[in-house]
Amino acid sequence: MHQTAGETNGWFTEVGVLNSKEVTISMKINQVIEQRKSEFQNILVFQNDVFGRCLVLDNAVQCTELDEHSYQEMGAFIPLNIHPNPKRVLIIGGGDGGIAREVCKHPCVEEIVQCEIDKEVVEVSKKHLPFMAKGFDSPKVNLLFDDGYKYVLEHKNEFDVIITDSSDPIGPAVTLFQTEYYQALFECLRPGGIICCQGESYWFDLKFIKSLYKKVKSIFPSVAYASTAVASYPSGQIGFLIGCKGTNVNFEEPLHKFTEKQCEDMDLKYYSAKMHQAAFTLPRFVEKELNQP
Amino acid sequence: MHQTAGETNGWFTEVGVLNSKEVTISMKINQVIEQRKSEFQNILVFQNDVFGRCLVLDNAVQCTELDEHSYQEMGAFIPLNIHPNPKRVLIIGGGDGGIAREVCKHPCVEEIVQCEIDKEVVEVSKKHLPFMAKGFDSPKVNLLFDDGYKYVLEHKNEFDVIITDSSDPIGPAVTLFQTEYYQALFECLRPGGIICCQGESYWFDLKFIKSLYKKVKSIFPSVAYASTAVASYPSGQIGFLIGCKGTNVNFEEPLHKFTEKQCEDMDLKYYSAKMHQAAFTLPRFVEKELNQP
Repeated sequence: MHQTAGETNGWFTEVGVLNSKEVTISMKINQVIEQRKSEFQNILVFQNDVFGRCLVLDNAVQCTELDEHSYQEMGAFIPLNIHPNPKRVLIIGGGDGGIAREVCKHPCVEEIVQCEIDKEVVEVSKKHLPFMAKGFDSPKVNLLFDDGYKYVLEHKNEFDVIITDSSDPIGPAVTLFQTEYYQALFECLRPGGIICCQGESYWFDLKFIKSLYKKVKSIFPSVAYASTAVASYPSGQIGFLIGCKGTNVNFEEPLHKFTEKQCEDMDLKYYSAKMHQAAFTLPRFVEKELNQP
Repeated sequence: MHQTAGETNGWFTEVGVLNSKEVTISMKINQVIEQRKSEFQNILVFQNDVFGRCLVLDNAVQCTELDEHSYQEMGAFIPLNIHPNPKRVLIIGGGDGGIAREVCKHPCVEEIVQCEIDKEVVEVSKKHLPFMAKGFDSPKVNLLFDDGYKYVLEHKNEFDVIITDSSDPIGPAVTLFQTEYYQALFECLRPGGIICCQGESYWFDLKFIKSLYKKVKSIFPSVAYASTAVASYPSGQIGFLIGCKGTNVNFEEPLHKFTEKQCEDMDLKYYSAKMHQAAFTLPRFVEKELNQP
């Protein structure tokens, strides 16, 4: 007996992707807004009374109206605020537009290149998730539809911050979790550059996180894992792997600390300088696993 | 069409208790270990490959082997380490023994009174959840089977710390979320005493938390909400409402900071002085809601 992933009887069920199929989250579908199959994946947008609009790719919830700000704000401002002057930013993936929406708020950022493999995710988001897709309206954003890994390989020494906003390491995002990709990111960065990559959940995927951590550490002199809370993800927790080309980086201490007024003006719902610091404070069992050889 | 709470087809499904019935978590039951109906509630213990042993009361997961340490360590050491000298501790509820297990590790604690309404929860935990129920083996613990609210009403000025480890505000725990209960806790504390109560999830229950926060604030001079991550709870996040009889309390700054060696000796998997500090750092949307009149 098992639970079926996907849409059944008016409910969407997510079965853990990396962990064994022993835990599921289900959300009631009050309305199917859009459902289609792109060249790369299945796309579903539905409405739930608690989470609001929900975007699902290949049976995994990517973001919901209730809690997307946590992922987007932390994924954008943690790396941006560790960098002394993040002028040029590259976003890999992030087709919903939420990361772009946050990155373009940063006062230092002059230009954003975004490379999303699936044009249809952007189309669907523009149509049904305008609260995120409005990120694409900024004149700072140059949106390309291309393979992120290929783009990174072809551009050397160009960006201050690279954010990989990918789905899980199956399907179209599989290459974005491999050593070769992190090496290409390293070369794509300018000196002192920072990467921030989707880093999975420590509750279910700690061994996987450790393997990623080791890969990044074999290439970047400074590496850390930052945690955030996302209610719609299995376990309610997800993290970011952060790497920096520089040495002796104090990840916990943001170089840009937004004032309360700036936070208000930027409409920040989750991120603050204190949340930045707290994100790098990890439970003892996680610290121990990551620091063990 | 809706999902059914409880045990069906070899799966246990939890339907949000406080939020509308729009989101569920399901765990595969690999083995039913025990299932019975006590005078107060339905008790279920089952085995799941990801979470290990799971304790369920009235269709809500109370704790699982994978992540119970997060709730128990934070619920015990946050209040204990805010108090300068927590000698006498009262635990209301907590029939699994996990909170008692942590409290008796604290070097200052001399005596613990625990008042659990349901003898059968303790019986079941001793039989099937020994990793938590071992808390009851400590000679410091005096375990009573009685109504917690009644006990608190009858004891004035006796305890330094009172921890309410209750289930959700339906069923046997309903009185433990009422103003009269917080007033009784206030009177049960010695001067400078601290309470720590189960405080629900900010993702789903923010309005409820705010109402609790206001109740506690109307009685205690100092109040705060501390957050922890628990993968097996809906949304993956739960908090504690902390109140102190003293004024100008700096909740974030533990008065007792365990060294790494102490943490190891106490077998702490989650809590550290830094996790203590981070627990009081809340997302902006939570801060704003709690601080609004």
